[in-house]
Formats: sequence, structure tokens, C-alpha cells
Amino acid sequence: MQDIFSYIDDHAEEYLESLFVACRQPSISSQNVGIREMAHLVNDMFTNVGLKSEILETENHPLVYAESEGYDSVKTLTCYNHYDVQPPEPLDEWLSEPFSPEIRDGRIYARGVADNKGNIIARLSAIDAWLKVRGTLPVKMKFIVDGEEEIGSPNLKFFPDMYPDKLATDGILWEGGSKDVGGPVHVSLGVKGMLYVEMRVRTAASDLHSSNAAIVDNPAWILVRALNTLKDADGNIMINGFNDKVVPETDLERHYLEKMFFDEKATLEFFGIEKFLDGVSGYELKRRNLFAPTCNIAGIVAGYTGEGAKTVLPGSALVKMDLRLVPNQDPEEILSLLRNHLDRHGFENIELVVHSTAHPFKTSPDHPLASSVIKCAKTVYGTEPIVYVNCSGTSPIYSLCKKTGIGAVQVGVANEDCRAHAPNENIFVQDYIDGIKLIAAVMDDFSRV
Amino acid sequence: MQDIFSYIDDHAEEYLESLFVACRQPSISSQNVGIREMAHLVNDMFTNVGLKSEILETENHPLVYAESEGYDSVKTLTCYNHYDVQPPEPLDEWLSEPFSPEIRDGRIYARGVADNKGNIIARLSAIDAWLKVRGTLPVKMKFIVDGEEEIGSPNLKFFPDMYPDKLATDGILWEGGSKDVGGPVHVSLGVKGMLYVEMRVRTAASDLHSSNAAIVDNPAWILVRALNTLKDADGNIMINGFNDKVVPETDLERHYLEKMFFDEKATLEFFGIEKFLDGVSGYELKRRNLFAPTCNIAGIVAGYTGEGAKTVLPGSALVKMDLRLVPNQDPEEILSLLRNHLDRHGFENIELVVHSTAHPFKTSPDHPLASSVIKCAKTVYGTEPIVYVNCSGTSPIYSLCKKTGIGAVQVGVANEDCRAHAPNENIFVQDYIDGIKLIAAVMDDFSRV
Repeated sequence: MQDIFSYIDDHAEEYLESLFVACRQPSISSQNVGIREMAHLVNDMFTNVGLKSEILETENHPLVYAESEGYDSVKTLTCYNHYDVQPPEPLDEWLSEPFSPEIRDGRIYARGVADNKGNIIARLSAIDAWLKVRGTLPVKMKFIVDGEEEIGSPNLKFFPDMYPDKLATDGILWEGGSKDVGGPVHVSLGVKGMLYVEMRVRTAASDLHSSNAAIVDNPAWILVRALNTLKDADGNIMINGFNDKVVPETDLERHYLEKMFFDEKATLEFFGIEKFLDGVSGYELKRRNLFAPTCNIAGIVAGYTGEGAKTVLPGSALVKMDLRLVPNQDPEEILSLLRNHLDRHGFENIELVVHSTAHPFKTSPDHPLASSVIKCAKTVYGTEPIVYVNCSGTSPIYSLCKKTGIGAVQVGVANEDCRAHAPNENIFVQDYIDGIKLIAAVMDDFSRV
Repeated sequence: MQDIFSYIDDHAEEYLESLFVACRQPSISSQNVGIREMAHLVNDMFTNVGLKSEILETENHPLVYAESEGYDSVKTLTCYNHYDVQPPEPLDEWLSEPFSPEIRDGRIYARGVADNKGNIIARLSAIDAWLKVRGTLPVKMKFIVDGEEEIGSPNLKFFPDMYPDKLATDGILWEGGSKDVGGPVHVSLGVKGMLYVEMRVRTAASDLHSSNAAIVDNPAWILVRALNTLKDADGNIMINGFNDKVVPETDLERHYLEKMFFDEKATLEFFGIEKFLDGVSGYELKRRNLFAPTCNIAGIVAGYTGEGAKTVLPGSALVKMDLRLVPNQDPEEILSLLRNHLDRHGFENIELVVHSTAHPFKTSPDHPLASSVIKCAKTVYGTEPIVYVNCSGTSPIYSLCKKTGIGAVQVGVANEDCRAHAPNENIFVQDYIDGIKLIAAVMDDFSRV
């Protein structure tokens, strides 16, 4: 691999310029700004490197699909990425223009450079280096580049049924992934699922004067009573059947969880808290973070919430909840359990409105692609990666992988303080170059495992 | 009294014009608009009728105090009123200018005409009619006219200690009071007290990503658990000691409560609800409304409450509560019970912030002023008044009456649909004229009971 690594170092300027080109094109999915231009740009960049690329229309923003052709290979490696970005606002907090990438103190600043253009172009550059140095690729490469990731990937779930041949692969490199600043890269092998649901209760036609509180029911009290049945005093989720399908961690996952580094002190400081929930630490803290399902109040509101006092009897109340799910919990099934639970406790008058669902998905650490990425990360970075056998967060991996059970691994070029979705989004130049090398190495290693 | 009633009818135009003069002067206490001009206007109007009037400075808006002099009398009757009004906004919903009173369809429209200038000027006009017809007054009359009622009467509580001689009286006609449209007038003999308190809990320095919900405590859940200890499943208030000092209704109060008309059907329709709390009706409904203390959630908020979904773990949560108190509950004592309750249940981390307190206060139906008003109302209106032996609402009566135990009776000229505090505030011309007669009659009757 040394010849390819040297080539990447020698052509760092060229690969940086490709990334700059991608970052100069705005592609804000939620505002429909520059989306079609960006899809064409990605399509052209893929074609120029030698891939067979095409734009696949959806009901909204198009996908870009590309694959390598004409090289012998027994295995296929797919990259799932997205070319859309978050809006750059608030603009006045940017130190340089969001769509004019600029290097300062070893970091590249631009909207989308971390999430997710750095990874698209690093992966594409790895292919370019292979072809330039060896004239061939060790694996068949595929790209599925979403144009709607930042708005919830509403059309991605149709891909498996519409394009089964394009989906066929031996493993997927998922879009994200992060890295400690100056420290180890993270390799993530799973995500929690989610049921995001609103509980609404209306009692009166509108807010009333609170002098009526002795004779008119209060929807906020109804919500408080209902919420209180969802958890016991120790915080255990009491929805009947909620935990029935949860599968325990495997021995191998426990092994990785035990050796996983988690900086408790820095995390407490960052959160501005004195201790973690229930005072847990060590293994149990890490286990809960990655493997415990949650039932979170993301928002609650009723009545008067401004400054000072107003004597209101609310006419309606609502709570927004996100329930993070772990294998093998099914969000639709959990919704039905929640409905049954509320009805059984006499809360038939609480309406449930679902905002989004996502299935959990995880890949075993002994999946060939996971093994390859873990091994190559150590080679390229010189230190063991931190392996997350599952994540606390959510991503629509299941929507691509559910039918085939293909493994998916997250690894990428973004530093922990990359400020994705925020002003002054950035990645380190060095992490970008190392990221190209990592993908080049994985292509080689994965072809042989 | 017929001579005085006839005089009032004959001089209706003149008394209406006095009311118009008062309504033309803006006097918005919360915006400090026209306050001093209004205090001087009231002072001048009192003086012109023949009272000895003066402006009493406070730390903020002045009071106007007036009393009759030079007429023999053994008894004193005091009117508590206020010359300040609510802001007129939203202006575009007014059909005529808020400070240009106008008569349409038998109603006078103006900001403050119902709350509370109609009552000030009706009471003053009754004095004028007595003096014009009889050349004397049957009772010594006093006026305490607040300039801060619409901002919570913060300085009224100092009046008893600063002006004990001015406070001395045999009974107080309180500022408000209402009347069914085309139906009986209401005579109210008590008010609930209030503790308005905010419960605040902060866990993290700011809102966090909800993927941390498995390891970071959620202040909204803390609040839900704490709130749930305040009431049992049947809605009974469980704060230890909360009900200890509540005094039961007297036989006389029960008698009035039994015969009190309460239009359940119209109230349900107006509130837009199908049944009252716990399905109560009849006597128990009326009893709860007037005599049951409450623990109301006036507002609750945490995390994301906008449209759609946002995966937030709130850093703080708050609930605004108004607890309506009945004789002899003391708001400061209830606050201390609440603090003890939360501490005993492990919620030492919940901060309590008090916004306002008010003591309950009630006057017995056999108090001479109450008897007089009830009797005269029947004479003037031709129908029995509806006697509220207590109210569901709150008013700072206790702050004037606590030391002396003077009785206070609410009766006034505002119709039930008078739109106090809202655009197109109004009273009926006929109710205004009848209101003048009622006060004239009460002065006479009260002098003899």
C-alpha cells in the first residue's frame, strides 16, 4: 500500500482542490438551493475519475448512483453518502464564507466539509489513487449518494425495492464517522432506532381563566399523570412489552465495550453536569449509552410559559417524545404498545401523532468489513480506533440494509469538534488526507478477507 | 327613595356624561399612560360633587382618597375602586375608539367602562343624587381609588398601616361585580386567595442532543415525577397539611349555595367541554367552584415545542402553578408546606419562585352590608340577586380588610359579557342607571341596619 499512500501524499493539493470544488457548490436540501447543480457536479466528478455514474430521480431531490466497471473483482464495497447540507445560518457567526472553503490553522472551513462532502471526496480520491498507481481496483466500488439526508432521507427507503441490483454488495461504508482531535478515529457498527411521537390532549375549546380549575379538567395534569405511568420512580420504562424483544449484547460486543475509551470527566464538563443518570460510570455507563433504549421528553408545553404570572387553565397540552430503540425493537410495534398502555391506564383521550420512525441496526464486529476497517485504521493512524459496537444516535441504515442484512460501518474524516450543522463547520487537512488513505487501505484489505 | 330614583332617571344624561368624561381619559397603569391625569380628574370629580378629596402618593401610581364631610351619620360606607385600566390592544379589534366612549344598541363601549370606571362614577352619582335631592347623606361615604389594580395592587397593602383613620369604616363595597344580561345582578361575598409559584429545575448547562438520554437526567421527567406527588389519581391535593386549616362552609353559606342558580348547560357550552371535572353537578359543583382550593398547572414548558420534531434533551424545565386558597389557608404557609413536600420526596433540586400571593377573604351573608345589598338589589332590579357566598376568583380584599375584619361586598354595573380586559369592553346604559339607584338605596338601607 506504500506506493498508494505516497501518491496520496504527493497529490494532496489536487485532492484538496476536489473537496473545495464540492464545497463551493451550495446544496441546501431543506431550502432547495443548489441541489440539482450539486447532483450534476457529483455525477461529473464520479465520471471524471472513471466511474459509471447516473442521476436517479426521486419524488424530490435526486440520488447519484455510481459504480466501477471493467476491473476484475470478487467483492463489492458500497459507500453511502449524501451531497446535501444543512442551511448555513446564522451567517454572521461564520469567520469565512460558508461556501468559500478556506484553510486556517490546519483546518478546512466550509458548510458541508465535515457533513458529508469530506467523506464523499475522500472516498472518491482513494479510488482515483488506486487507478492512477495500479491502473485497477481491488474491489468493485459503488456509491449511493443521497440528496435528502438532512431532511430525513424520505426517499431512501424505496431504493432497495427499486434498484436491487444496485444495492447488491458485500458491505457498506456509512456516511458519517468521527475522530478525536489528534487522537483515535471512531469506528461505529450500529445505530439506535427511533419512535418520535407527540402525545396531545385537549380538554376545553381554548385556554380558560384558572379560577375554573376546581370544576374543569386540566390537560397538563392529564399529561403528567399519563407520563408518570410510562416510567417508574427509578426511570425504568414501564410500557408493557417494551423490553420484550431487546437482545442482549454478544460476548464480542461486551469485549469491545469493555475496552472502549470513554472520557467521563470531559463529558461531564462538556454537558455541564455533576454526574451521569443514576450516578452510573464505567462499563454500565458505556453499556447504557450504546445499548439502553430511551423514553425521552424532547419537549412539553401547555398554558402560559412567558415571563411572570398568568392565571390560565390550559385548553390543551402536548409532549414530544423520542424513544430510542435497540435491536430488535420495531418502532411501529412500540407505537402500538404505547397506544395500548395509554388505553389500559384510562388515557384514551390522549392522541398520538407520529413524526418519524427508524429501525435500529447493528453490524457485528466480526463482519469482514468491520474487521477490515478496524485493522486498517490501526495501520493508517498508528493507534487503535475506538470501536462503537453500537451508537447512541440514529441513522437510516436500516432502510438500505433491512432486506439484505448487509453490514454497515461508519468511519469518516470529521473531528469531534467539527461543528456539523453549526457555523464554522470544519475538518483537519491531515484527517482528510489520512481518511483517503484509510479508504484506499480498506479497499485492499476487504478484497482479501 | 322614589324621589331619588326619579332624580336619577331625570338626570341620566348628566350621569352618563360624567362617565364619558372618565372614560375619555386613558389611564393604563402597566404602560404608565395618563395615570397622573386620571388621578387628578377623579380628584376633581369627587371635589365637584362635594367630597373632600386628596391624592395619596405611593412608590408608583397614586391613590385617590375622598370622604364626605359635614353630614350627620352614625355609619360609614367605603367604596374601593380603581381608576387604572388594561391596555386597549389589539386596537384593530375595536369597533369604536377605546378612549372615545360610544353608545350602540343600548351599550356604552369604552376601555375601562366596565372595569372599573362605570362603578366609580355610578357610586359618585348616587352621592350626587342624594345631595341634590335631600341636601344630605344618610351615611358617611369614603372612596379608596387604586391606580394599580390592573398591575396587582402592589401598594394597597400598605394603606391600612399608613392610614388607619381613613380605613375605618363599617363596610366596603368592593370594586367589581357582575350581572346576567337582562337578568339578576350578582352579589359576591368572598374571594379565594392565591399562591402563584414557579417550579424550576435545571440539570445540564443547556439543551443537549437527545441521544444522551440514556446517561443524562432529564429535567422534564423530574418535574413530571414531582408534579405527580402533588395530586393523587383522583385529583386530591396531597401536599401534607394543605387542607388542615380549611374551614367548612357555614349553614348560612350552604343555604345560599343551595339556592344559587348556576347554569350548567350554558357553562359547559361556553367552556367547550362535555362534563365538569369528575362529572360533578348540582350542589357539589357549586361548592367546589366556590369553596374548593385548587392546584392548577397554569403553564409548563421544557425543550422543543415548535412544529415537527427535534431530538432535544432539555437542560431545564419549569412549571407555573396557581394554587387558589380558601379560608383560612395562608399563602406563605402553603408555600412552606410545598417546599417541605418537595424536599421530603427528594426534590430538593427544584427551585421555587413566587410570583404573587393573596389571602382568601370572605364576608358572612348576615353582615349588615351584605344584607343591605341583597335586599336593595331585589328592590331596584325587581328580581332576587344571585348571591355568591364566595368566588372562584381572587382579589386583594384581604390587604385592606385583614386588620379590621371589615366586611366587603362586591356588586357592580358590568354585564357578564362586558369583555373586561378585551376589545369592545362595554356595559349597558340601563345597568349603569340601575347601578346608581342600587348604591343610593344601599346608602339609605345600610344607615338603618
